[in-house]
Amino acid sequence: MPTFVERLSARWRAADSLLCVGLDPDPTRFPAHLRGRDDAIFAFCRAIVDATADLVCAFKPQIAYFASQRAEDELEELIVHIRRRHPEVPVILDAKRGDIGSTAEHYAREAFERYGADAVTLSPFMGGDSIEPYLAYAERGAFLLCRTSNAGGADLQMLEVGGERLFERIARLALAWNRTGQLGLVVGATYPRELARVRAICADMPLLVPGIGAQGGDVAATLQSGQTAAGAGLVINASRAILYAGQGEDFALQARAAAARLRAEINRHRKRQTVGD
Amino acid sequence: MPTFVERLSARWRAADSLLCVGLDPDPTRFPAHLRGRDDAIFAFCRAIVDATADLVCAFKPQIAYFASQRAEDELEELIVHIRRRHPEVPVILDAKRGDIGSTAEHYAREAFERYGADAVTLSPFMGGDSIEPYLAYAERGAFLLCRTSNAGGADLQMLEVGGERLFERIARLALAWNRTGQLGLVVGATYPRELARVRAICADMPLLVPGIGAQGGDVAATLQSGQTAAGAGLVINASRAILYAGQGEDFALQARAAAARLRAEINRHRKRQTVGD
Repeated sequence: MPTFVERLSARWRAADSLLCVGLDPDPTRFPAHLRGRDDAIFAFCRAIVDATADLVCAFKPQIAYFASQRAEDELEELIVHIRRRHPEVPVILDAKRGDIGSTAEHYAREAFERYGADAVTLSPFMGGDSIEPYLAYAERGAFLLCRTSNAGGADLQMLEVGGERLFERIARLALAWNRTGQLGLVVGATYPRELARVRAICADMPLLVPGIGAQGGDVAATLQSGQTAAGAGLVINASRAILYAGQGEDFALQARAAAARLRAEINRHRKRQTVGD
Repeated sequence: MPTFVERLSARWRAADSLLCVGLDPDPTRFPAHLRGRDDAIFAFCRAIVDATADLVCAFKPQIAYFASQRAEDELEELIVHIRRRHPEVPVILDAKRGDIGSTAEHYAREAFERYGADAVTLSPFMGGDSIEPYLAYAERGAFLLCRTSNAGGADLQMLEVGGERLFERIARLALAWNRTGQLGLVVGATYPRELARVRAICADMPLLVPGIGAQGGDVAATLQSGQTAAGAGLVINASRAILYAGQGEDFALQARAAAARLRAEINRHRKRQTVGD
């Protein structure tokens, strides 16, 4: 079975897309015709997934939105649906877990066995041994938080440690922990200089980049700072700007249009290898 | 309504106990007569709770054990049971969440509205603004990871930042973030010197201390390093050493005996205020 990074790389090429659609279902923002339906969360997400799958390199469900609404069953069903209808699109479960020992094993089981995710987001705060239980799933991946997109991220991540910032140290540690090639990093689009530093440290590691759109990150700066020499290496997430692009019965079409625009904008700023490369 | 810290302080006094029982249900370790029952997780935890409630200052369910087993319903039911039968015992949901903005709001809703926890464990990695959505629940609390009990915790937490260690900086930040008195810190019993540093920085803040028992932390050193001037301030967690003290049909009685022994050992090392204080 191919590894997560191999599947992601194949998808970057096949879909010609670095765009990831984040699945953060907020029923208060659903179109009127879906509200009140028992299966509204699943129905909304399925429609978004089916309307955008050919345009994306990954889907990223955010587990908090399901957990706050007792919708774990719908999250399971959604991932089963993606597997069945769009098996070529990797699923990144955004959970930002961080724990140790047998607790970390249980979180890994939740992400990879219960939900069947291809990758999961994790916090590096508890150190290398807190990551290992996830790496035991050889064909799965993990993205470690490195420099997050929020202002408060600087409270710890920008502290100076021995001549570099903490987020740079995390990038270096991730390189060291990545003997099996299963790791990526999370770096916000809102800080393109830091994104460029992470790319300088980790030449080829996949970077999951939130913060485009609602949070104000710039597409051109993200590509310039974060893409690899081959013009890939990025999983650029957008959630609200796509999910809630339309408010009517045609919301999925509107979401598709928004995703197509963002994918095209991203692609305009990508390095392209010339024929024969 | 009293705040979380007020309720915890009241419980320290009323139960004369700093012991917290961690609810980490692992069905492979359950007594034979419970295995295979549909409600085994709930039945096991309820028996432990009812057998130990009068001996503890708090219960700490670890959500990963429930999530990996599709047992969210049983976790809800368990906390409802604690509320109903042992309303004086605070419930700390061990979830180590860490995210921003509306995602953090959904995690706060999960912990405090869905599960009805009195407090939750959080990662400080994403900074002060990632904590705020939890503080919006004025009568609830949050424990921030500071110096964790695992060896890998040193990878980040022991880095030197401007003349102190990162865990010390986190303790100082927590003081600054704690305008409303809702915060505590998580410091492992396996590092008593760091526990003493945190107590020196945060004179009165509640410290949740894992790492006693299976992980090798020492009770005497924990008390010496971590108790407040008043001989309290600690929530000393034990999970496996209590949950799996017995393997037979009397497992709850065995758990009670183990909890009573540990509570007594903790109390032997507490400062006691003299009459008239």
